[in-house]
Amino acid sequence: MRTRPLKVALLGCGVVGSEVARIMTTHADDLAARIGAPVELAGVAVRRPSKVREGIPPELITTDATALVKRGDIDVVIEVIGGIEPARALITTAFEHGASVVSANKALLAEDGATLYAAAEQHGRDLYFEAAVAGAIPLIRPLRESLAGDKVNRVLGIVNGTTNFILDRMDSSGAGYSEALDEATALGYAEADPTADVEGFDAAAKAAILAGIAFHTRVRLDDVYREGLTEVTAADMASARRMGCTVKLLAICERAADGKSVTARVHPAMIPLSHPLASVREAYNAVFVEAEAAGQLMFYGPGAGGSPTASAVLGDLVAVCRNKLAESTGPGESAYSRLPVSPMGDVVTRYHISLDVADKPGVLAQVATVFAEHGVSIDTVRQQGKDGEASLVVVTHRAPDAALSGTVEALRELDTVRGVASIMRVEGE
Amino acid sequence: MRTRPLKVALLGCGVVGSEVARIMTTHADDLAARIGAPVELAGVAVRRPSKVREGIPPELITTDATALVKRGDIDVVIEVIGGIEPARALITTAFEHGASVVSANKALLAEDGATLYAAAEQHGRDLYFEAAVAGAIPLIRPLRESLAGDKVNRVLGIVNGTTNFILDRMDSSGAGYSEALDEATALGYAEADPTADVEGFDAAAKAAILAGIAFHTRVRLDDVYREGLTEVTAADMASARRMGCTVKLLAICERAADGKSVTARVHPAMIPLSHPLASVREAYNAVFVEAEAAGQLMFYGPGAGGSPTASAVLGDLVAVCRNKLAESTGPGESAYSRLPVSPMGDVVTRYHISLDVADKPGVLAQVATVFAEHGVSIDTVRQQGKDGEASLVVVTHRAPDAALSGTVEALRELDTVRGVASIMRVEGE
Repeated sequence: MRTRPLKVALLGCGVVGSEVARIMTTHADDLAARIGAPVELAGVAVRRPSKVREGIPPELITTDATALVKRGDIDVVIEVIGGIEPARALITTAFEHGASVVSANKALLAEDGATLYAAAEQHGRDLYFEAAVAGAIPLIRPLRESLAGDKVNRVLGIVNGTTNFILDRMDSSGAGYSEALDEATALGYAEADPTADVEGFDAAAKAAILAGIAFHTRVRLDDVYREGLTEVTAADMASARRMGCTVKLLAICERAADGKSVTARVHPAMIPLSHPLASVREAYNAVFVEAEAAGQLMFYGPGAGGSPTASAVLGDLVAVCRNKLAESTGPGESAYSRLPVSPMGDVVTRYHISLDVADKPGVLAQVATVFAEHGVSIDTVRQQGKDGEASLVVVTHRAPDAALSGTVEALRELDTVRGVASIMRVEGE
Repeated sequence: MRTRPLKVALLGCGVVGSEVARIMTTHADDLAARIGAPVELAGVAVRRPSKVREGIPPELITTDATALVKRGDIDVVIEVIGGIEPARALITTAFEHGASVVSANKALLAEDGATLYAAAEQHGRDLYFEAAVAGAIPLIRPLRESLAGDKVNRVLGIVNGTTNFILDRMDSSGAGYSEALDEATALGYAEADPTADVEGFDAAAKAAILAGIAFHTRVRLDDVYREGLTEVTAADMASARRMGCTVKLLAICERAADGKSVTARVHPAMIPLSHPLASVREAYNAVFVEAEAAGQLMFYGPGAGGSPTASAVLGDLVAVCRNKLAESTGPGESAYSRLPVSPMGDVVTRYHISLDVADKPGVLAQVATVFAEHGVSIDTVRQQGKDGEASLVVVTHRAPDAALSGTVEALRELDTVRGVASIMRVEGE
């Protein structure tokens, strides 16, 4: 074994960074044995240098992250700051100065992964980011490597723990969205500003990363259709239950049936209780991958948290250090397929639509005509009358989303339709 | 991209091999793009050269596998023959003659993986074998690489599809073992000679491989405690149901609580219906991995079959070819921990014991005394009388297996115990 240590710079020392530093110290012998050389924490860039950081020698702490990545003796930079800047500038600077990079930064990778990949390749460095998607669950490496000889057709999963916690609470207790969000916040599952989670930005970033890797095509955050869960109501959840379903916020990346385009989207959807994703509780994540030869695979585990995310970071650290010792690099960007990313309107899906209608003869016929005019075939209708008003619950067969949303718009125009109480896609069947 | 192709020799052209050859042809462009060079099937060694093999040019077929691996121009040998010899000799010869090896051979890896690793290292070649365990489910790579920065404490899973199919049928239809085996055979899930599956040899080989990688310690097939499922009865299954459990054939690899030894075992066990493994149906496989930082991860998918296994082989082929182009190698054997493998008697587990006893006062007291004398604490007892005889169903708390089996032996000696109707371990709680 080489005795000269590989030097690691840690950018960010919050929940994940401090856990990475802790494990690097407590498991130093194991890491050395697995890498073939010791690894040494050579510097830790933080914003608040005065904060006491247990186990980290104070002389390693710096507020000058740029100077740290420019030192020239750093072998690997671990970036757990998050956000676009200064993370992007620090990562590209690190590549320029001889370091490989392990990052957990989903937002940056989804926004501008291509720039990072290009910089890594230009300087012959590694860019690894298992921790960016679904915490400790191995997903990037299986997609990038294990399935490299297969053709992935679909990735479908729960990739945001906060929203899964909220929906699980709504499902199990009948709580409304606000109440469930309050509980998630109180228990530390939701941040003070939950926007990134509840509006689906976090899941959409992960969908972009997964789609890009799965389909060997560049997919950016802007390419991902996104709906959060703030409009999911207790009534929607109850309606899902009546259908033998529950509601999950899903990230879905699909290759079109003709293979010539792909789509990526994040939205709440009803899935049957018999589907394995329906039983993913609390803040857990789970991702289905469908590949031509492999069939259907599922990966499940804790999708966030300091320790699980640190596990993923350290797995990448070992890989990157091994590559460094072997003077090689792991797989870089694979975007050779260059498939276009189709808009949401082209996605083939199913709708569950709940309408408040006038309780008089002929309404169902009118409604059914609108569906037919848009080429949307109806699977089931449930009609319920109450005091001169009635509700109609329609579940469609599969149709392009544009036709489905066009149908809903036309339904709103009908005099006999008093309102559209809820619309939700149905997946996983 | 390099235009000179990498040359691949395929040893074996059965269900898996023919699918590997087919995908190499139909997906040649994708493989080339992902590897960075085309791959060419340079030879296929078979036993029966007269058999028509669709899509494989007849001039590639040979019966002389040794000559094929000795050719000197082969970059990668794919070994899907199975068994110990001639597979072992062919693999080591391949290394000597410049090739890296992708193998699906669980029996050989469990029997003598150390020899193969040593030969690969001596000649600077790669040995990859994702397909040896759980078909297409990425498991070897996640354990070897994704979790390389973590400490795995437990691997628990269903790694044999045939036996899971049999137990699933017994559970869902109330069928006995023989009847369920017949159905599995008729549907092609069991081989004509099902010994390797139903006696647990296949699962034990996989347990040895998983334990070795998970614990960075050499574990051989002989180190794995093994019980098959041939003695699981319809009554056992019914008894499990009454306890809110089902019966699965589990492979369990554990690090002892003090961290100083490991165990690996395969046996039928009752697991609660609420455990995710309980709902793994038909011939599917699923494996839980518990690691210190990552927490509990689960991997699920088809555990066998030509296409899924070929997917795993081709993923490895891409990795090995990339390494070849980069003039590097992937991770080799990691057995630095050198932990002793403890015998079954040291494993801490729980027993579900069903006794036929005389229906008279004092029997329970006698039985309870035997448990106490062996230091085994009882969790629950259910007593049921019928016509002068009675049955006692005892579920213990956790205790060393030696104490539990010692208890059972002592119970057999009691005059009032007419027989031990069944003994089964209880896991997953």
